[in-house]
Amino acid sequence: MMHNMKVAVGIDIGGTNTVFGLVDEQGNCLAQNALKTSNYPLVNDFVAEVSKQVNLLIDSCENIEIIGMGVGAPNGNYYTGTIDFAPNLKWEGVVPLAKLFAEYFNFPVSLTNDANAAAIGERIYGAAKGIDDFVMVTLGTGLGSGFVVNGDLVYGHDGFAGELGHTIVEKNGRACGCGRRGCLETYASASGIVRTAKEFLENSTNSLLVGLNEITSKSIADAALEGDQLALDIFDFTAEKLGFSLANTVAISSPKLIVLFGGLAQSGDLIIKPTKKYMEDYLLNIYRNKVDIVPSKLKASDAAILGASALAWN
Amino acid sequence: MMHNMKVAVGIDIGGTNTVFGLVDEQGNCLAQNALKTSNYPLVNDFVAEVSKQVNLLIDSCENIEIIGMGVGAPNGNYYTGTIDFAPNLKWEGVVPLAKLFAEYFNFPVSLTNDANAAAIGERIYGAAKGIDDFVMVTLGTGLGSGFVVNGDLVYGHDGFAGELGHTIVEKNGRACGCGRRGCLETYASASGIVRTAKEFLENSTNSLLVGLNEITSKSIADAALEGDQLALDIFDFTAEKLGFSLANTVAISSPKLIVLFGGLAQSGDLIIKPTKKYMEDYLLNIYRNKVDIVPSKLKASDAAILGASALAWN
Repeated sequence: MMHNMKVAVGIDIGGTNTVFGLVDEQGNCLAQNALKTSNYPLVNDFVAEVSKQVNLLIDSCENIEIIGMGVGAPNGNYYTGTIDFAPNLKWEGVVPLAKLFAEYFNFPVSLTNDANAAAIGERIYGAAKGIDDFVMVTLGTGLGSGFVVNGDLVYGHDGFAGELGHTIVEKNGRACGCGRRGCLETYASASGIVRTAKEFLENSTNSLLVGLNEITSKSIADAALEGDQLALDIFDFTAEKLGFSLANTVAISSPKLIVLFGGLAQSGDLIIKPTKKYMEDYLLNIYRNKVDIVPSKLKASDAAILGASALAWN
Repeated sequence: MMHNMKVAVGIDIGGTNTVFGLVDEQGNCLAQNALKTSNYPLVNDFVAEVSKQVNLLIDSCENIEIIGMGVGAPNGNYYTGTIDFAPNLKWEGVVPLAKLFAEYFNFPVSLTNDANAAAIGERIYGAAKGIDDFVMVTLGTGLGSGFVVNGDLVYGHDGFAGELGHTIVEKNGRACGCGRRGCLETYASASGIVRTAKEFLENSTNSLLVGLNEITSKSIADAALEGDQLALDIFDFTAEKLGFSLANTVAISSPKLIVLFGGLAQSGDLIIKPTKKYMEDYLLNIYRNKVDIVPSKLKASDAAILGASALAWN
């Protein structure tokens, strides 16, 4: 008799795209597909279509046993299985997404926010394998984070723990989408570094970035790699804010490791080296030279699905 | 046949005094004693004397069964059972205190720092009973903290988690004993508020605090209770720093409750009300009006022993 291979379904919901797939225990993505989230203004239509497509993926694989489904979504709450007031999604208010998916399947459905899903993915398949105390920081359009303590994700009493991007790093600093000022994500994120570049360019004519049609974290990284001083200064400025916040974070949870993920993290040593330097400068002596900062080891193309699916294994 | 009552030994080591006693499961202190820590420049002499005195306490109680010993000490490390480079103790370097005590007794000995011990004490006997996610903040000479997440104390990978007092709240702020600048404890602690008072008094002649021989957190509180505006301003300044830091802390671990303990916390609403107001002002909207700040419910005279003994029950 054949033994069926155990497989988890992972669904990652973003404001633009939703990706989903089947993942085995080793983190191999057996099958995947995607659709445009924004094409589904009604969440019921969205759930019906994704469920149909997931069933097609399941039918395409032989000898598998689905152990569960993990969903990563902006503002996803693990405790309630709901998406609560996500600013980048068309579905308003509190959306009971885990319950809606559960109606289509006979296996358990878990939901959390995308940064928490990434943290679990990194622990099961990536750079934090076997590490019980670490922090995942996702440097995308915003800055998300997931804290793992004693081997468990920190959800907090209400499921909303881990908003490092909304710790205030500069009182009366930059305006943030949350309505306050000086949040870390207004500086340390793909959009934050672009804001910095635009500010710095107001007083500079001597840079590869001058005259570019569109400035992105990638174009800043490309200029920095060519030795462009303004681009290097932009990374230094960003790293100082991030390093400062990480030093304060280490004093709270004393992690072994900080894993960086997302668009800005793809600039690698350009962001990691100065961030590490500033973090060490700001750290209390008992923590110095103990905390690594490393890039994610999840394949970028699969990472979102892996992270979400990891929730099901957990 | 009599059933023996289960009892834990609690030892709290401070720079000046060491207090120790026997505590039952309900948090009643059955017997206690104290000695001057500073009279014992050699740690072996200290352990021998405390052990002798603890045995006298044990002999004085009938029908008890000792289940273990908990020790709270500055810079105490739960994982290693050592006191590491404590600036306020005469014993230098790394002191294997748990091991030294274990040689005198046939029950288990656990050690942690005083703020972590207070957190466990508050959860077992005090204001955080039954609460799985909370933060303990001790406002004594310094500012200590203990984080409880998912019902467990956060030790971090190295046992040194929970140094909220050494998160930086003002870059280039006040000099701290740790060698850096702007640590929260230079503002929000019994000594921090006295520093603030001295600064404020340089530009004021109209206050009950003018001309006092010695300014303490208690004399500032007394003046504030009489409506002294300068004293109220000093509390407001202190509360702004503490409230800001707590707002950033909430964004990381999303606790249900923050418990304040220690000398400055004894000023009650004078510190709690403005701290809560500033924390709410600085909080991200999803956390607002959800997090309580309350004073410790441990009796001040027993609290140190209760906290340490709680480690043994844990």
